[in-house]
Amino acid sequence: MKRLNRSYFPGSERVPVIRALDRVTAAPVYAAISSPHFHAAAMDGFAVKALDTFGAGPDRPIRFQVGANAWPVNTGRLVPEAANAVIMIEDVHFISEEIFEVERAVVPWQHVRRVGEDFVASEMILPAHRRITAYDQGALLAGGISAVEVVEQPSVTLIPTGTELVPVESLGRRAPAPGETIEFNTVMLASLVERVGGRAIRTEIVEDTFDSIRAAIKEAAQSDAHLVVVNAGSSAGSEDYAAAAIRDLGEVLVHGVAMMPGKPTILGIVDEKPVIGNPGYPVSAVLSFELFGLPTLELMLGLPHRSRPTIPVRSARKIPSKLGREEFFRVKLGRVGDRVVAAPLPRGAGSITTLTKADGIIRIGPLVEGVDMGAEVNVELLRDPLDIERTVVIIGSHDLTLDVLADELGSRGLFLSSSHVGSLGGLLALKNRTSHLATSHLLDVETGEYNWSYIRRYIPEIPVKVIRCVSREQGFIVPKGNPKGIKGFEDLIRDDVTFINRQSGAGTRVLLDYHLDRLGIDRSRIKGYELEEYTHTAVAAGVLSGVADVGMGVLAAAKALDLDFAPVATEEYELVIPEEFFADEKIQALLEVLRSDRFKRRVAELGGYGVENTGMEVTPRPMSR
Amino acid sequence: MKRLNRSYFPGSERVPVIRALDRVTAAPVYAAISSPHFHAAAMDGFAVKALDTFGAGPDRPIRFQVGANAWPVNTGRLVPEAANAVIMIEDVHFISEEIFEVERAVVPWQHVRRVGEDFVASEMILPAHRRITAYDQGALLAGGISAVEVVEQPSVTLIPTGTELVPVESLGRRAPAPGETIEFNTVMLASLVERVGGRAIRTEIVEDTFDSIRAAIKEAAQSDAHLVVVNAGSSAGSEDYAAAAIRDLGEVLVHGVAMMPGKPTILGIVDEKPVIGNPGYPVSAVLSFELFGLPTLELMLGLPHRSRPTIPVRSARKIPSKLGREEFFRVKLGRVGDRVVAAPLPRGAGSITTLTKADGIIRIGPLVEGVDMGAEVNVELLRDPLDIERTVVIIGSHDLTLDVLADELGSRGLFLSSSHVGSLGGLLALKNRTSHLATSHLLDVETGEYNWSYIRRYIPEIPVKVIRCVSREQGFIVPKGNPKGIKGFEDLIRDDVTFINRQSGAGTRVLLDYHLDRLGIDRSRIKGYELEEYTHTAVAAGVLSGVADVGMGVLAAAKALDLDFAPVATEEYELVIPEEFFADEKIQALLEVLRSDRFKRRVAELGGYGVENTGMEVTPRPMSR
Repeated sequence: MKRLNRSYFPGSERVPVIRALDRVTAAPVYAAISSPHFHAAAMDGFAVKALDTFGAGPDRPIRFQVGANAWPVNTGRLVPEAANAVIMIEDVHFISEEIFEVERAVVPWQHVRRVGEDFVASEMILPAHRRITAYDQGALLAGGISAVEVVEQPSVTLIPTGTELVPVESLGRRAPAPGETIEFNTVMLASLVERVGGRAIRTEIVEDTFDSIRAAIKEAAQSDAHLVVVNAGSSAGSEDYAAAAIRDLGEVLVHGVAMMPGKPTILGIVDEKPVIGNPGYPVSAVLSFELFGLPTLELMLGLPHRSRPTIPVRSARKIPSKLGREEFFRVKLGRVGDRVVAAPLPRGAGSITTLTKADGIIRIGPLVEGVDMGAEVNVELLRDPLDIERTVVIIGSHDLTLDVLADELGSRGLFLSSSHVGSLGGLLALKNRTSHLATSHLLDVETGEYNWSYIRRYIPEIPVKVIRCVSREQGFIVPKGNPKGIKGFEDLIRDDVTFINRQSGAGTRVLLDYHLDRLGIDRSRIKGYELEEYTHTAVAAGVLSGVADVGMGVLAAAKALDLDFAPVATEEYELVIPEEFFADEKIQALLEVLRSDRFKRRVAELGGYGVENTGMEVTPRPMSR
Repeated sequence: MKRLNRSYFPGSERVPVIRALDRVTAAPVYAAISSPHFHAAAMDGFAVKALDTFGAGPDRPIRFQVGANAWPVNTGRLVPEAANAVIMIEDVHFISEEIFEVERAVVPWQHVRRVGEDFVASEMILPAHRRITAYDQGALLAGGISAVEVVEQPSVTLIPTGTELVPVESLGRRAPAPGETIEFNTVMLASLVERVGGRAIRTEIVEDTFDSIRAAIKEAAQSDAHLVVVNAGSSAGSEDYAAAAIRDLGEVLVHGVAMMPGKPTILGIVDEKPVIGNPGYPVSAVLSFELFGLPTLELMLGLPHRSRPTIPVRSARKIPSKLGREEFFRVKLGRVGDRVVAAPLPRGAGSITTLTKADGIIRIGPLVEGVDMGAEVNVELLRDPLDIERTVVIIGSHDLTLDVLADELGSRGLFLSSSHVGSLGGLLALKNRTSHLATSHLLDVETGEYNWSYIRRYIPEIPVKVIRCVSREQGFIVPKGNPKGIKGFEDLIRDDVTFINRQSGAGTRVLLDYHLDRLGIDRSRIKGYELEEYTHTAVAAGVLSGVADVGMGVLAAAKALDLDFAPVATEEYELVIPEEFFADEKIQALLEVLRSDRFKRRVAELGGYGVENTGMEVTPRPMSR
């Protein structure tokens, strides 16, 4: 059986210390000179022989003559050989230009940094396998070391495969055609390699055939690469070719790991070098490489594996997972009260923004069947823990103004984590203490009042304040030019019309159902009623891409995608804030943003929003009867 | 009054996404295309119209013809316009080459990643002020963004001043002469600038005169630098010139801050640009720049200030500090039992290795007078918290073999924190549970046995094991050729001989005092008896540099500095390990190292060490009488 050959691991090279930041020492480094390497004054004053001061006192001052038995020195300068102590300038009394008196004896080596005070020539300054810091550069130079032996940067060849792929370099020249996928996995992997201290080489895109993939792997394994990574396109075909090619050239050790995403990972050896077959979906590609590729590079660098720091959190929702495989959930984090809560992001391995938006990753092991809502679980942090303390957690109804809010909070150093589970879900999150505030637009059709009756019904025990965010136009989102001529709810049951819906619990769904009931329209006759989306934008995207002919949502979503819109109602979109969080400085900053002209102007530019009452508190109407 | 001009802050520039890692977005980035931007198969199989499958069942299969109403698709590929669902390859039953049956209806959009599933064209991919990660690069490219507007890197001009300074570039050509100091502060500052995302320019060394310092600051302020840093030499003179020059050119806002080290910091403005006058001692230079320079750069980049993560620790010793100023103590950290303990490193601002060795920094505020031993205090981490869990904490007697031990543990991914407080101090640290083990060589002169009688006397309540580390030769360390002809303890009281001592509690000091008492030698007659050092190496360095004519220590220390040695005694240097830590895997790894041939060979090479019994357990002799 062929195995890894450590002689193919990176060797070492000599680099100037001034360019050695973040490199890894290949061997211990010993001081060439002591630090300091001469007896140096630690104060400004006069260097003297300590013995000459013995017997001095306030009534028996001893005289010194500059140049004869006393020499002026500044901090850091050489103490003359004849001297072994420094008297501070403040402690001498000049009698004449050249003569001064001292009234107190000094001990030998007072105010002198003696040779080797920090370290002595031949002492070890840095151990082997140390990632060199800014401080280390200083210590090396202090020790007279101008160049240092470091581990050569491991070189990683990244081979993108997939006939549907087009190179990132083509971007900016033309938009990718339908069916063409921009190859960016190797860009991400290259950055991960770079961050850990390796060098990445991205090859040309290789087409999905056994022969071309085999040839690319062979060439890479015979080059001076220390690690070869074949990054399958999203097509399963190329993964199969990769495994077959590795088997043909060497040995496949592992094909398929019990992780999700990342299952199709291949670990193999070709020409005694490690070869990784990486899955094609971007999230899978990254997570698999972090799990198998980065530790390989750390091993080559002689560094211990750096796992991410973890903290305990509470899950804001139930997270189901399958037995028999380790699942990786990307989550948003925020501190709510005395605990950090984790809101899971979508699972799709194709959704790279689930990583860009994630604050952490929850791993659920193969022997565990998911995590209950509110259960404690460890999360691996992707961000600075302080950012989590600076995050406002919103759970509730989706609106496009939340993006503006996030952006404005960002310029104040705060972050927004918003999960879109609908208005009712938002109120329930407050009940479960998993968010700082809910966004909601639940209309009580009896009274025409928003939110208060639902608050009284669902979270009567939680004292809250309600703040108006925006009033917004809801209506039908239709393709440009409204080709099917949709004007009212009656059109939704037409044979030639497909609808796209919002999930139950969403205020927009409540609004739709209210009107359907009012008009006596049978829901089961609406084609697509069961096709549910979680945001206004997703509904608009469904219309844009031809999935549906019409959906319900806000004007801004239609406008953003250049679609047409037929208004149905104007409604109030509000923030429901528990009183316990109201004084929190993050919430106060959010309200400040909300009340700013800048925010209102940006929101108005989105279209379909009223900002007259934005930021105002809304109190419940007096109960009639 | 002149103030900062924000229009001199960094602007923005457009960079290719593939080179944008770690840059900071200057504005929100919106998707140019949706992701995916076409309906893509999420599985390998056949694309069909969902409607065509309606009514299918096990007893009522529906037939499809490839190319007519079904099209083969691989994961990630385009779903033809005529289709709106994908049937997995596993779920079709081929009747002939071109005909297959399905036995189950599929819903529209099954196994299809619809356009915009991750995000829709026009949606925000990244907010402003975001440091771009590897994942972010992927998301940008997925959104069709090939170049991104980022904040220009702030440019920092670093001006080293000090006539005693020589450039690092001169190193390697010649050793610095006495009185010459290698200028490395700006190298460290440049690396700190680089780490936070700025660009640093190190100017030539400027001599210590008002005119040349003024001219250098003026030139830098008028250049395109965004921040100017004058790094004083260690001479106080240059600091004074820096303040005067800044005042002459602009305004000094702050001169002197209540911090230690770092007191002489100057903050000023010249030509509406920030100018920092940095103190000269390397530790002061770094700490002051981290406190004032880095936040300035973060502000310019539009990033929130990243303070270091902190954890609560227990102080292994009393740390005295002065009221009225904030003191920064560098500490070693390690987990001992259920708490992390902090052992303070030396305070000297000239000792750069107090930063390279530090695991963290304890700040003691101006209103607090030090920290008691065992008190809880917060520490700012300089290292990965996991490293702390991997650290063996040794407190006790110094020996050069500890460096070898540290190096060997390092190649196993473990770290060693050793504090040298003498053998007795080591036993007391065990009592206080601030270390995993003590190093000790305390001879009971009555019995000739090492350590056990002291263990019984000082830590009777702690069950320990004693492991032999090395036997070593103690003796007189004297200059090469032994010019003063020192042969025995009687020579120490000669008029022409100066001694250098170890601190009380050190085993070597106990050995010295034992022999002085035995011979009836009056300690007060030994010149230099009161000059105490904490390590063998420091004693040897004192002899090498002429501070003393003789000191007591181990042969290896003399050999390391090429000094001569007159042996006095052979003694046993042992590890005292509480039984509660004995099974700890770090301790077991340490014992494995100790017992390895490699360790013994390396120790033997140091000279003066016996390794016959290295790694063996030493049990107490049966009590006689």
